[in-house]
Amino acid sequence: MFGSMMDRPLLISALIEHAARQFGETEVVSRETHGALHRYTYRDAAVRSRRLAGALGGLGITYGTRVATLAWNNHRHLEAYFAVSGSGAVLHTCNPRLHPEQLAYILNDAEDVALLFDPSFLPLVEAIAPHCPKILNYVLLADRAHMPDTTRLSGLMCYEDLLAESVDQYVWPEFDERAASALCYTSGTTGNPKGVLYSHRSTVLQSFALSLPDTLSLSAHECVLPIVPMFHVNAWGIPYAAAMNGSKLVLPGPMLDGASLYQLIEGEAVTCCAGVPTVWLGLVQHMEAADLTLSTLKRTVIGGAAISKTLIRTLSERFGVEVRHAWGMTETSPLGTQGCLLPKHIGLSADEQCAQRAKQGRAVFGVEMRVVDAQSNELPRDGKSAGELMVRGPWIAAGYFNARQSVLRDGWFPTGDIATIDSDGYMQITDRLKDVIKSGGEWISSIDLENAIAGHPAVMMAAVIGARHPKWDERPVMFLVTKPGQALDKSEVVGYLRGKVAKWWLPDEVVFLDALPMGATGKVQKTELRRDYADMLCLSA
Amino acid sequence: MFGSMMDRPLLISALIEHAARQFGETEVVSRETHGALHRYTYRDAAVRSRRLAGALGGLGITYGTRVATLAWNNHRHLEAYFAVSGSGAVLHTCNPRLHPEQLAYILNDAEDVALLFDPSFLPLVEAIAPHCPKILNYVLLADRAHMPDTTRLSGLMCYEDLLAESVDQYVWPEFDERAASALCYTSGTTGNPKGVLYSHRSTVLQSFALSLPDTLSLSAHECVLPIVPMFHVNAWGIPYAAAMNGSKLVLPGPMLDGASLYQLIEGEAVTCCAGVPTVWLGLVQHMEAADLTLSTLKRTVIGGAAISKTLIRTLSERFGVEVRHAWGMTETSPLGTQGCLLPKHIGLSADEQCAQRAKQGRAVFGVEMRVVDAQSNELPRDGKSAGELMVRGPWIAAGYFNARQSVLRDGWFPTGDIATIDSDGYMQITDRLKDVIKSGGEWISSIDLENAIAGHPAVMMAAVIGARHPKWDERPVMFLVTKPGQALDKSEVVGYLRGKVAKWWLPDEVVFLDALPMGATGKVQKTELRRDYADMLCLSA
Repeated sequence: MFGSMMDRPLLISALIEHAARQFGETEVVSRETHGALHRYTYRDAAVRSRRLAGALGGLGITYGTRVATLAWNNHRHLEAYFAVSGSGAVLHTCNPRLHPEQLAYILNDAEDVALLFDPSFLPLVEAIAPHCPKILNYVLLADRAHMPDTTRLSGLMCYEDLLAESVDQYVWPEFDERAASALCYTSGTTGNPKGVLYSHRSTVLQSFALSLPDTLSLSAHECVLPIVPMFHVNAWGIPYAAAMNGSKLVLPGPMLDGASLYQLIEGEAVTCCAGVPTVWLGLVQHMEAADLTLSTLKRTVIGGAAISKTLIRTLSERFGVEVRHAWGMTETSPLGTQGCLLPKHIGLSADEQCAQRAKQGRAVFGVEMRVVDAQSNELPRDGKSAGELMVRGPWIAAGYFNARQSVLRDGWFPTGDIATIDSDGYMQITDRLKDVIKSGGEWISSIDLENAIAGHPAVMMAAVIGARHPKWDERPVMFLVTKPGQALDKSEVVGYLRGKVAKWWLPDEVVFLDALPMGATGKVQKTELRRDYADMLCLSA
Repeated sequence: MFGSMMDRPLLISALIEHAARQFGETEVVSRETHGALHRYTYRDAAVRSRRLAGALGGLGITYGTRVATLAWNNHRHLEAYFAVSGSGAVLHTCNPRLHPEQLAYILNDAEDVALLFDPSFLPLVEAIAPHCPKILNYVLLADRAHMPDTTRLSGLMCYEDLLAESVDQYVWPEFDERAASALCYTSGTTGNPKGVLYSHRSTVLQSFALSLPDTLSLSAHECVLPIVPMFHVNAWGIPYAAAMNGSKLVLPGPMLDGASLYQLIEGEAVTCCAGVPTVWLGLVQHMEAADLTLSTLKRTVIGGAAISKTLIRTLSERFGVEVRHAWGMTETSPLGTQGCLLPKHIGLSADEQCAQRAKQGRAVFGVEMRVVDAQSNELPRDGKSAGELMVRGPWIAAGYFNARQSVLRDGWFPTGDIATIDSDGYMQITDRLKDVIKSGGEWISSIDLENAIAGHPAVMMAAVIGARHPKWDERPVMFLVTKPGQALDKSEVVGYLRGKVAKWWLPDEVVFLDALPMGATGKVQKTELRRDYADMLCLSA
């Protein structure tokens, strides 16, 4: 027997309409590509989103059609978020840092018929256009004044002209909430990128979970700055959640250096942020160098990669910013866990609290987690038993775009992470399935080693990789980048690690580099290290 | 085209399992009917809920079967919330304050096959049992020690025995999230009570909206006390939302007098509450009489009836409790609006802020609102145009239990309230469609008159009713209850109102009573006043 409730779908268009009706005067501030700040309100954003939706219809873009974007975090990209999905089409956010060949691959794989892009990507788009025959419409996210005099793109359209010529009375269509809303490709470390196809349902449900007090705690009294790019898992869903709660939204554009972010946070009175660890390192370095403080920022969600205790303590103790470690992936929309402390942790020492915060956090309502052994048997939630992390929930992927078969195992999504879960639900990733170092039949966690050395004052970044070894099968080799003006040698590194990790975990080799190869989403690319240092990763007994 | 997300249903069983896994040690404290406090954890509650679900299955209760409860806010009622709905059956919460005949009517209308009830209701249940032939199982919510020596109920079962004999490894079933979860009858002012049938989907979605920072703001760091009864619109959904967020839950049992509530709030360090205005009046009177203060309570949601500015100011200015006025009804699950101030109100004077808080609040995400004229045309959101309030959303009723036809108008639920909506989305109820006084072609708001006189220091309660009048069609008559030891006469009342309301709004008659007839849900029953004072409500020119 069904309930007697209304059968109303959860749609993305309702988010911007809610913001316009309930928070019409609340500001959306965004950094234009050329540096200036643009200000308007949710009411303005709704009007322009409707006009864009109307214009897309005029271009023959209909329900289910893929529309690609190559854009920074700015107000026009925000309008595309609501207009493309709201109209029933699918928003395909592309990562401009991908190799042009990979970019052309995903544009063709997604069968995008239109591409909306920021002026800074014009050369890139001109270069890949010949390889993307299915793209019929190129739209430059700019006004008439910023259109190029000449371009190799035939029929390049001006975004502001499109809006000006569009209808004013567009009405959002209603459809099944399971309809596809957005498409994001994983920067797969192996093989071609795979597309994750989000739905209106998964997006709205995740927005609720993201907004809860113990997650990001979004309200009309908060000002949120998504540093995480809008081309990367929908900026973790923040643009949607901000509209749901009427939070002031600040979009940083392309300038993610410490100085620009600091100026934006202080200038707009930002109260909460979200970004990957590397961005925070840059911000902290800038603030420490210039001896600056933060006057409004209360908390930040950090995810996308493991975060060091040093960064957590620096942010909380020196800058008064609460770090909430979150875990997720493209396939989880991405919100999987939140790292807000429990009441029983409030009395703990700074050290103990930091240890809790360094864990990947606890599953938010809507996401179920378990760790399993190689035979898919669930392992105890004892904080010790490590196994592959499996997740399940309404905003977790069941499969990939254009892929026929499900990727689920017993109805659960296999994350490829090795993790433990404790009795409070705290999940802690010990390694990636593919990065864990198998030495003498035992496992060595590359991440634990990286975190251990990250505490050294002279260390900026570290990556540990398993090197083939005739006797032990694999042994750890550590790649290190020291801070500017700092130097280290192998004996100092090993000496620092001794006592912090098991003796047999100590790296056999330490390689010092000027920089580590970073991926498009700000993660160290161990695959490149494995390729570039193949010979060094082949040890002798 | 659909997204590639998992097709996972939103189920109530997931709420208690989430609480058990992520907040296993968090306390649930409840006042037993005989006065003692009972304490256990969400982990305990989950174990016992599973055992109850197993026991219900043993009684032959299956998917869609209705199970009734007659119980106060206590831990066994909480277990029934999760066990009955979680097992796929329908939880029918009955209001013990209903007239026995009405109670028998709804038990028969719902076709309940089981009734779980608190010991204090044994005489009531014995009295109605002969009129409820469909009820096959009577379960007393007590342990063996509290079972009666003799009872007219044949085969009365002991709740604790049922649990003790039940299985330990119950696994919650999975089914369509639109499945009915709970049934609540509206204490209809006209005709027989009508049943609103909630679904798992509507319940979980409302829990998200209720938990957001600007609504009740529930987190693992809050301790919430639902004073609103669990037999009244599921205690506004707080038991579900508390489990979703791991908030400490305090259930007050039958003792809702000011002294008991105060002792519970201070004793358990309650941080947020929810209840109807009358309950708050009692608490404030107790605290003022004993010159007490509140040390942990931060905010309360008040709804169910219009709330006076006096109460708002007393709670905020004298006791430091933020009042968040919410509006809803049984048909809206009930969350429709929240009254959290906007950032632009922070700078306002106490008077101006109070004026904002006295409004019914702003639609939460998921609920759409509009006011329409008699021809169903939408009226402007200008804060002036008054019309019938229409609502729409996934947790709004489309119809009633056992009623074939939908009650919607153009897809919207007609609330029967007369309201305005302003440009910020603030909704303000000016009257009930049936209570508004039509005088000389104009409308007089009975509620505005009641609120105006509520400010008088000698007034405890007031109700204004339209009396038939040969010349003006209708004219206002005011029924007043003065505070203990206080006295008033008509001229003082009219004198106090003069200047506060339009001259032609001044009541023609003022009737002083020792008490006003209160309904089972703490609302003044104007129908009884109309019946008992029929002659007095027929004025002459």
